[in-house]
Amino acid sequence: MEDDRITLAHGNGGRFMRELIEDVFARHLGAAELDTQADAVPLALNGGDVMITTDGFTVQPLEFPGGDIGSLAVHGTVNDLAVAGARPMYLTLNAFIEEGLELALLNRLVASLAQAARDASVTVSAGDTKVLRRGEGGGLYLATTGVGVRLPGVRPSMQNIQDGDVVLVSGSIGDHGAAIMLAREDFGLRGDVLSDSASVHKLAAALLQFDGLRFMRDPTRGGLASVANEIFRATGLGVRFEASVPVKEPVQSVCDMLGYDPYYLACEGRVVAVIAPHQAEDAVAAWRHLSGGEDAARIGRITSSDKRVILETSLGGERFLEELEDDPLPRIC
Amino acid sequence: MEDDRITLAHGNGGRFMRELIEDVFARHLGAAELDTQADAVPLALNGGDVMITTDGFTVQPLEFPGGDIGSLAVHGTVNDLAVAGARPMYLTLNAFIEEGLELALLNRLVASLAQAARDASVTVSAGDTKVLRRGEGGGLYLATTGVGVRLPGVRPSMQNIQDGDVVLVSGSIGDHGAAIMLAREDFGLRGDVLSDSASVHKLAAALLQFDGLRFMRDPTRGGLASVANEIFRATGLGVRFEASVPVKEPVQSVCDMLGYDPYYLACEGRVVAVIAPHQAEDAVAAWRHLSGGEDAARIGRITSSDKRVILETSLGGERFLEELEDDPLPRIC
Repeated sequence: MEDDRITLAHGNGGRFMRELIEDVFARHLGAAELDTQADAVPLALNGGDVMITTDGFTVQPLEFPGGDIGSLAVHGTVNDLAVAGARPMYLTLNAFIEEGLELALLNRLVASLAQAARDASVTVSAGDTKVLRRGEGGGLYLATTGVGVRLPGVRPSMQNIQDGDVVLVSGSIGDHGAAIMLAREDFGLRGDVLSDSASVHKLAAALLQFDGLRFMRDPTRGGLASVANEIFRATGLGVRFEASVPVKEPVQSVCDMLGYDPYYLACEGRVVAVIAPHQAEDAVAAWRHLSGGEDAARIGRITSSDKRVILETSLGGERFLEELEDDPLPRIC
Repeated sequence: MEDDRITLAHGNGGRFMRELIEDVFARHLGAAELDTQADAVPLALNGGDVMITTDGFTVQPLEFPGGDIGSLAVHGTVNDLAVAGARPMYLTLNAFIEEGLELALLNRLVASLAQAARDASVTVSAGDTKVLRRGEGGGLYLATTGVGVRLPGVRPSMQNIQDGDVVLVSGSIGDHGAAIMLAREDFGLRGDVLSDSASVHKLAAALLQFDGLRFMRDPTRGGLASVANEIFRATGLGVRFEASVPVKEPVQSVCDMLGYDPYYLACEGRVVAVIAPHQAEDAVAAWRHLSGGEDAARIGRITSSDKRVILETSLGGERFLEELEDDPLPRIC
């Protein structure tokens, strides 16, 4: 048995599994809160209105410019609670670890996950590990479930969206997708593109004070275009993007070079919001005062005249953003 | 693209993923409760004391005598809540699906999961799917998080265990592990051994009325011997099993033939309980009246005289059951 790599015996319920959980998971995640001896643990929710979400993570490579699968798992789950109007409080964590994974790498990833959880003020309250045979896993898959309590203020929902509403985004789009593309060796490219992977809970909470807020979403898999198509499918209202959608220059260059469209690339630290027109400017201003919201912008509007998702190009033309079919980039999150 | 198998495009956030979720997951799991358009969903918990647990499932084969990975995922998670003294209410579901998996098989597994959830009166309230590239997954991995509310009565915990307490089991041990072994082609054996995979929430709830109840656990990975070693590690008290631990004859035969020890084989529908001696017989009687508890038995005792886990053999000898090290059987759950 190699001492520095995961073996099948780390998954068997015996001594090696206990030591793995103690030495890696409980050590980073806080043994006091992560009771490894209990089958289920109590959550202190103080009678609040409980919200729940869940997410799986399979990103390749496990570490990428601007983040890794550990912090991404926290951000992705926290963000789903945040855009639904909840304060993220607890996470559960499932780790599917491939036989042969270096323990040093696993330690880095779990430490990063623990740091992201502390940064977002969430507690990892329950966990489970399974070991997959060599070749049966991509190094590490994670699944996280997030529990939070609904914050006072608006209850954002796609059903609230009205004709004439304005669409905002909290920052540039496509950074995560482009960073993952560049991190993959098969492209043979390197650039100064970083993933935007981050918790958006402060950005989301800031918008709940606006009574004209209709809906928020973090545009992950499928990107901004997919969020817009979901809005269209759910409401029957068109979404029209103006040419002002923020895309960083190196992200656009990567897309041009490789034939990708930034509107379909995943973000992992952005919020798309739909809001009543009279509060749009104030909401953008509120975001710009917050860390991660510096590049917030008004990017489009909801319209009953269009019955699809339309992008106004910088040359004055129009382009339809259809629902995604082919996979632009597997294992992005 | 083959229409009857999973493709990478089923994981991309676009049309195929939406259709997969609508046609397979939402259809079986109840579209009304599983809101596929929301990032996070509210749970109706009525201010109860909320308990949470999480589990990953990688069993091979995906279908086995007596169960499948779908129902097993429900049972495993529901059972962790049940033995902790909670009423299971909600599940979240993560599915990691390998490219190439037959849609017909996926449908059977999700339908089985949905049926098990209905049988245990739990609602699948949130879900996520990821598609893994061919060769990067074992067909299907599942991760489930369970949320419940603490039931009135005793709060079972390993820390309550006292010298002289009695150990009970709700039925025969090793059935699941033996069934999985036989279901694997490489053994070239077939028998009439069925997995015991089942929800134990009624068995567990029945024991909460006994004020002498100390602790309950479902002996999964690592089996009865591992639960006993956890008790010894946590309390410093020995565990002494009598020769009366129920093992079905075909399970014992399989173990004898293949060199396995039923005390280390996983169960997926049993409860091990520790209880004050004066209530042991009544607790066994209560279990025997319930479905799944017909073979309940008193199997051992907690003792400060022994400082390890000891099995009394039928020949009057003793055998030490050490903490598991080598993996007897990977991918058992």
